[in-house]
Amino acid sequence: MGPHATMQTVCRASIQCTSAILVALFAALSSAIPVFAEADPLASWIDGTAKRAIVDFVATVTTEGSPDFVPPGERIATFDNDGTLWSEQPMYVQLAFALDRVKVMAPNHPEWKDTEPFKSVLSDDIKGIAATGQKGVAEIVAATHAGMSAAQFERIVTDWIATAKNPETGKLDRAMIFQPMLELIAYLKANGFDVFIVSGGGVEFMRPWTEATYGIPAENVIGSSIKMKYRSNASDPSIIRLPEVEFVDDGAGKPVGIQKFIGKRPIAAFGNSDGDFEMLEWTTTGPGRRLGMIVHHDDPRREFAYDRKSEFGRLDKALDAAPQRGWSVISMKDDWRVIFPNSEP
Amino acid sequence: MGPHATMQTVCRASIQCTSAILVALFAALSSAIPVFAEADPLASWIDGTAKRAIVDFVATVTTEGSPDFVPPGERIATFDNDGTLWSEQPMYVQLAFALDRVKVMAPNHPEWKDTEPFKSVLSDDIKGIAATGQKGVAEIVAATHAGMSAAQFERIVTDWIATAKNPETGKLDRAMIFQPMLELIAYLKANGFDVFIVSGGGVEFMRPWTEATYGIPAENVIGSSIKMKYRSNASDPSIIRLPEVEFVDDGAGKPVGIQKFIGKRPIAAFGNSDGDFEMLEWTTTGPGRRLGMIVHHDDPRREFAYDRKSEFGRLDKALDAAPQRGWSVISMKDDWRVIFPNSEP
Repeated sequence: MGPHATMQTVCRASIQCTSAILVALFAALSSAIPVFAEADPLASWIDGTAKRAIVDFVATVTTEGSPDFVPPGERIATFDNDGTLWSEQPMYVQLAFALDRVKVMAPNHPEWKDTEPFKSVLSDDIKGIAATGQKGVAEIVAATHAGMSAAQFERIVTDWIATAKNPETGKLDRAMIFQPMLELIAYLKANGFDVFIVSGGGVEFMRPWTEATYGIPAENVIGSSIKMKYRSNASDPSIIRLPEVEFVDDGAGKPVGIQKFIGKRPIAAFGNSDGDFEMLEWTTTGPGRRLGMIVHHDDPRREFAYDRKSEFGRLDKALDAAPQRGWSVISMKDDWRVIFPNSEP
Repeated sequence: MGPHATMQTVCRASIQCTSAILVALFAALSSAIPVFAEADPLASWIDGTAKRAIVDFVATVTTEGSPDFVPPGERIATFDNDGTLWSEQPMYVQLAFALDRVKVMAPNHPEWKDTEPFKSVLSDDIKGIAATGQKGVAEIVAATHAGMSAAQFERIVTDWIATAKNPETGKLDRAMIFQPMLELIAYLKANGFDVFIVSGGGVEFMRPWTEATYGIPAENVIGSSIKMKYRSNASDPSIIRLPEVEFVDDGAGKPVGIQKFIGKRPIAAFGNSDGDFEMLEWTTTGPGRRLGMIVHHDDPRREFAYDRKSEFGRLDKALDAAPQRGWSVISMKDDWRVIFPNSEP
């Protein structure tokens, strides 16, 4: 029975007719929905245990009346960033940013030529930088991430990320994001999830580009931070970034960051290193159905292959714990049809 | 021309018919819309300069093509809580909570009978508590707000707020919320704003009830905080609240809290005391059209009357600054038809 026939049969009075139109419209729309639904929202995921774990989990927590149903406001999903949403090799993008900034700022700091850690940075001596230890890194962060307003820092990051390239592949950093994870974020959001980034990286290094890159707005980004201070002014106040670490959002800091910023316990968490262990533990030990997943970098042809021995993003303890904790391991090689947007399989 | 006639005239082929139904439906719906729009979303606001300032502002920033148009993701509005969304007299609700907790916990702390500040709390000696100064208050906060898990604290607050009453009026604290502000929050949300609470109060004291009370979810609540620590455990990890202040979200702390948690500058801010001065300044000095408003407690008959001389929520500097800063002052007496939900005008 077509909508035309429905109209002629049912429309007797004007109000009845309006509801008949409504019914007919919904009938027409719902017969159309399967056509759209057939386009797989996780098309870059190969059918396998990882993809099935995601689809089953989402179906279970979104089915009203199911004992594991979770109302929309409680559907919190958290993603690590470096190595989980984009590549972190051969070095964290934020570290590359800091080193670039030292070079840009060097003309105003002639003393850096003879002072560590800057001397090593200026001569591209990565081992020399590493030898300066945590103190050296803190000095680099202080010099490059503090001493300006939050608005100025946002501008610096925005300009830098527009052209920043991976030193090994020569591709734009913003192009080395993981297509399957973009689909996963969109799929979760379409199913009523609130999606957050929970990263060891600097929160104000990420916020300027996460919305355009991942569809995750600034207020849904949690990260490490330095202290800030408000400078009052009747016409042009500012927020000044201070050279002092405030919060390290890594390891046991991640559940704390989640509690501080969201105040709700996630039901799904995604990471790729031991720095995500506690976030996965906190998420998956909660009551009801939970999902914990680890991205395993095992595809040297299309991306990088590393885990236990890597200096950055070491995956060791979490990989061992995965089977007994019920965390799914995502093989980039076997579970992902493509890795980067618009790339070949 | 009724929708029935439209159908008969236009429906020749099935696809054409479907679009005709769609057109008819939208026509029917849009003719219905003015009926709903006539219900004033700000019904508790008396028509006057304050209400006009709100409506004009919202119309301006939501009109596409207008030079002051602000896209939805940037429409950030921040509200102070105590004295702005609910009553703060004769004492902050959170202070009443802390004092109640001391009494509940006292049987396990026999030494409190002879130790300040607890001795004064147990004998309802407010002046005695005040005499112990900031150190005394810090001890009360440490004893009542720390030493348990975040989940346990949430349960304590939830149970307490369910029956907590204002000591002067005998009404439930949760009933002493401002109806015009509830309407304002809903109005802003309906117009694509993201609404946040930015309060000097403890963030984890507010989060358990803000969604049910104001329609503002936990993740949109910014407040003062104490430090927390993650306690790892394979089956039952927890987040422990430590007796150490981490962040004071008041005065110059408010713009910093906004930057930390939202990472975006508000375009509208609402407060009622000098503790909101910097938030109002930070909000209203940004580029484009901005809105800053101050709730003035000038209605002793229906609520309380206080400003410059009050011990809590002092409004002095901000009241003087309002005219030159372009901040609107909301008179509770003259601008609000009713103050509390379901109350008489």
